[in-house]
Amino acid sequence: MFRLKADATSRSMPIAADILPELQAILGSANVRADDDARVTYGMDALKRGHPADVVVFPKDTREVADVVKVCARHRLPIVPRGGGSGYTGGSVPIRGGVVISLERMNRILEIDEANLIAIVEPNVVTGDLQDAVEQRGLFYPPDPASLRQSVIGGNVAECAGGPRAFKYGTTKQYVLGLEAVLPTGEIVETGGKVVKNVVGYDLTHLLVGSEGTLAIITKIILRLIPKPPVQATLRASFADVRAAVAAVTNVIRERVVPAALELVDGDSLEAVARYLKVRSLAPAGTGAILLVEVDGSAAAVGEDAARVEQACRNAGATEVLRAHDDEARQELWRVRRELSLSLKTITPLKFNHDVVVPKGRIPELFALVDRLKREFGLRIPCFGHAGDGNIHVNIMVNPADEAEISRAHAAERVLFEGIVALDGSISGEHGIGFAKAPFLSIELSEEEIALMKRVKRAFDPDGILNPGKIFPA
Amino acid sequence: MFRLKADATSRSMPIAADILPELQAILGSANVRADDDARVTYGMDALKRGHPADVVVFPKDTREVADVVKVCARHRLPIVPRGGGSGYTGGSVPIRGGVVISLERMNRILEIDEANLIAIVEPNVVTGDLQDAVEQRGLFYPPDPASLRQSVIGGNVAECAGGPRAFKYGTTKQYVLGLEAVLPTGEIVETGGKVVKNVVGYDLTHLLVGSEGTLAIITKIILRLIPKPPVQATLRASFADVRAAVAAVTNVIRERVVPAALELVDGDSLEAVARYLKVRSLAPAGTGAILLVEVDGSAAAVGEDAARVEQACRNAGATEVLRAHDDEARQELWRVRRELSLSLKTITPLKFNHDVVVPKGRIPELFALVDRLKREFGLRIPCFGHAGDGNIHVNIMVNPADEAEISRAHAAERVLFEGIVALDGSISGEHGIGFAKAPFLSIELSEEEIALMKRVKRAFDPDGILNPGKIFPA
Repeated sequence: MFRLKADATSRSMPIAADILPELQAILGSANVRADDDARVTYGMDALKRGHPADVVVFPKDTREVADVVKVCARHRLPIVPRGGGSGYTGGSVPIRGGVVISLERMNRILEIDEANLIAIVEPNVVTGDLQDAVEQRGLFYPPDPASLRQSVIGGNVAECAGGPRAFKYGTTKQYVLGLEAVLPTGEIVETGGKVVKNVVGYDLTHLLVGSEGTLAIITKIILRLIPKPPVQATLRASFADVRAAVAAVTNVIRERVVPAALELVDGDSLEAVARYLKVRSLAPAGTGAILLVEVDGSAAAVGEDAARVEQACRNAGATEVLRAHDDEARQELWRVRRELSLSLKTITPLKFNHDVVVPKGRIPELFALVDRLKREFGLRIPCFGHAGDGNIHVNIMVNPADEAEISRAHAAERVLFEGIVALDGSISGEHGIGFAKAPFLSIELSEEEIALMKRVKRAFDPDGILNPGKIFPA
Repeated sequence: MFRLKADATSRSMPIAADILPELQAILGSANVRADDDARVTYGMDALKRGHPADVVVFPKDTREVADVVKVCARHRLPIVPRGGGSGYTGGSVPIRGGVVISLERMNRILEIDEANLIAIVEPNVVTGDLQDAVEQRGLFYPPDPASLRQSVIGGNVAECAGGPRAFKYGTTKQYVLGLEAVLPTGEIVETGGKVVKNVVGYDLTHLLVGSEGTLAIITKIILRLIPKPPVQATLRASFADVRAAVAAVTNVIRERVVPAALELVDGDSLEAVARYLKVRSLAPAGTGAILLVEVDGSAAAVGEDAARVEQACRNAGATEVLRAHDDEARQELWRVRRELSLSLKTITPLKFNHDVVVPKGRIPELFALVDRLKREFGLRIPCFGHAGDGNIHVNIMVNPADEAEISRAHAAERVLFEGIVALDGSISGEHGIGFAKAPFLSIELSEEEIALMKRVKRAFDPDGILNPGKIFPA
C-alpha cells in the first residue's frame, strides 16, 4: 500500500532532537504524535504515493498553528499543512518528512450570515457539510468537487477545487472573499474581508487560493454565498460519438443557455458503468458518448432552458434525450456519473487520473489525442468530465503489477500533457501540481514564469520550509 | 488646473541624458514625446493632481513595450503605464517623473470566440466598445464602471473595476482568464490562458488584477464572456430614509432574488439632481433615499423577480415603486443615476470621491457615520452607490478656493476610513489606492500584511522602477 517513490524520499533537513517537547508544550502531548501509525497515515493522500511524516500535530486554533510554525521555522523543519487528505497530486504528502499540521480539530462553521450572504468557517469543515448547512437556509455554496463528502474547505481553497457546477457558478476561487493565514515565518495575516469588493493592496486572497499549501497555512475562510436556485431539471442525451456530443455543447452555448452542469461521459466509461452495475441499457449499442445537463433557476426559466437544451441536443444528432424534473428521476440520471469512479476500478485497480483542460471547442481534438495514445501505447483510457469547461478527466488505467504497462502509461502522460498545451489547454484544471505533476510544469510554463513564481514563493517563505518539493520541479 | 502636490514632486532618480535616442531607436521619433504639452497631459488623471512625465512613449506592441522597459531598467528610470487616464486615485500619474508608457496604440479587439465564450483584447480597448462588440453577437461582458466610455480594459484590469452590475455578475476579476504582461525587468510572461479552470502554479493572473500597474505592464487580456440576458426590467422605489431603503435591500436578498443592479441614491444626491435637471419631481418632499433595481434574465424569470422586488420594497415601507420594462422607460428611471456626477458639481466644483465598502447589512451604520462627519466637520457629503455590494460612494464636496474647508475635508477622510474599517469594511471597493489613498493604507492593513505585499512587489520589481510611490505609504 505504502509505495515510496525514489524521488520523494530525500529529506533535505534533519529533524531536531528537541522538537517534540517544544511541540508538546504548545499543544499538550495528546496532540503531538510521532508513532508509526500516525506517521504513515498522515503521510499519504488519494494519490497513494506517500512518505512518512516525522511528527503529526493537531492544533486547535490559529494561535497554536502560529506557535508550531515558529518552532519549525527556528529549526528549519519542513511543515506540511493537511486537510481532508483527498488530493490527487500529493499536495499534503510530507515528501521531505518534517511536521504535518493536521487541521482536523479546526472544523467549525463559525457563522452563516444570511443578511450579508457570507459564511465564515475554519479550514476543516467538510465541504458537503457546509453545503447542507447553508442549503437549509435557502442559500447555496456551489463548488462541488467529487470528493465533497471527504474534502474540506481549507483543502478546496488550497487547491482551488472545481466540480460540475463550475461551468455556471465558477470554482472555489469565485467564493473566497477573505482568509486568515499563518505565514511560514509564524506571522498571522488577514487578506480580503467580509466585503465582495476590496481593492486595497494586492489580492493576496486569490494568490493563496490554489497555492497548494506552499505560501501560507489557511486557518479561517470567509466565503460568499448565493441564493439557492429553487428548481433544477436534468437531461441525459445519448450520441453516436464524442464529436456529436461536443457539437451539442456548442449548440447549447449558441442557444445562450448556461447550464449548471454539462457533463460528458465517453463510451469506454459508459461500458465500465454498465458492466459494474450490470445494467446493459446504460450503454446501449451505438452510444459513443452521453451528456448530462442540469439547468437550474426559477421554475419558468428552468422549463424554457430544458426545452432549449433538448432541442440543441437533437439538432446535434442525439439518439435519445431523457428529461427528469423530480428529484428521484434526476438522481437516476446522475447515477451513471456518480458510479464512474468505482466502475473504472473493474478495468484495473489503479488509474492515473489527469484533469486536463482545453478550450471547450477543442474537446474533439483532445479525444483524438487520447485515441492516438490508446493505439500507440496500448492503453485503456476512459474519459469523462466537465464538457462546459473543457475540463476532461483522462484516466489512464494500469495494472499495478504490470511494470511495462506502468512505464507505457508514464510515457503516454508526457505526450498527453504536451498535446494539451499545444491545444491552448492546461495540464491541470482541478487537482493542482503537488509533487506528482511537478516534473511536467515546464511543459506549460516558461522558464521566466517559473522563476517569477519561485520569487513569489520566497516572498512568503524565505527559508523554503512550507510544503517543500511541491509545484516546482526539483 | 495642474495642481502639484508637495508630497508628489520628489523625483528619486535622475533622467539619463541619452535615453531619448534609445527610445526613438525603438519606437521611431514620432512615438517619443518630451514636449511640455505631452508631459503635462500625460501627467494627470481624473484625480486632478498630477506631476509631469519626463518622456511619454507610444509603443505599438508587446515587443516594443518590453524593449522600452529594458532601456528604463538599465537606467533605473521610473516607468508608469497608462490606459484611459480615468482613474480616481492617481494610479497613472508619474509622481516621480520618468517614462509614461501610453498604451493607446494597442487598442484592438483581437478575437471574439463565440464557441468558447472568450474575447482577446489589447489593453487600450475602451470598455464600452468591447461591450458593444460582444453584445452585437448576443454575448455579454458585465463589468460596467461609470467611466466605461473613457476607461479601457487594461486600466479596468489594473484597478479591478467594478460598477453597478458587480452585485450579480462580479467585478473585472471574475472575467479575466489570462494575461500577457511585461515585467519591470523586461521579460514577457503569460499567465492563465483560454481555459476557465487552470490550477497550474500560482494564480498570477489575479495577483496582477488590481495591482495598479505596480507589478507588470499588461499587454494582452483574455476575457471570459457570458450569454447576454435577453430581458431586463428596472424598478425605482422611493423611501423616507436610507434605513428603509436598506431594509428593502435586505428584503430583496431574503427573497433570494439576485438583481443585476441594486443602486442607492441618498436625499442630498437626489436634491442635487433635481436642481441640476430642474425637475422637482425627481426629489419629492419626504424622499430620503431611492433604490434603482434592475433584474435580468429570461422573460419569465424577469417578470417573477420584478414582482418580488416590488413587494420587498413595499414591505420595507416604499412610498412609491415604479416599474419599467421597455428600454425607453428604463433609461428614464436610470437618468437620475447617470446625471449624478454632473449634478454634484452644482454643489461645489471639487469632490473627494471615496468608494468605501461595508458588509451590506451595515450600510445604515455607514450613513450614521457620514451624518456625524457632516455635523462635526461642517461638510456637505452626498452619497450614492452600489447597495447590493455595500459599496457606497461618499462624496465630500469642497470649494477648491476654501482652504479651511479642504483641511476639514481631509480631517474627515481619516475619520471616515477608520470608521469604515471598524465596520468590517474596506477603504476602497473600486478605485484602488494609487498615491491619493496611500497614506491611509495602514488603517486597513497590518504592518505584517504591508511588509508581505512589499516583498511580493520586490519579487516582480527588484529595483522598484515600475509605478513607484503607489499603494504603499512613502
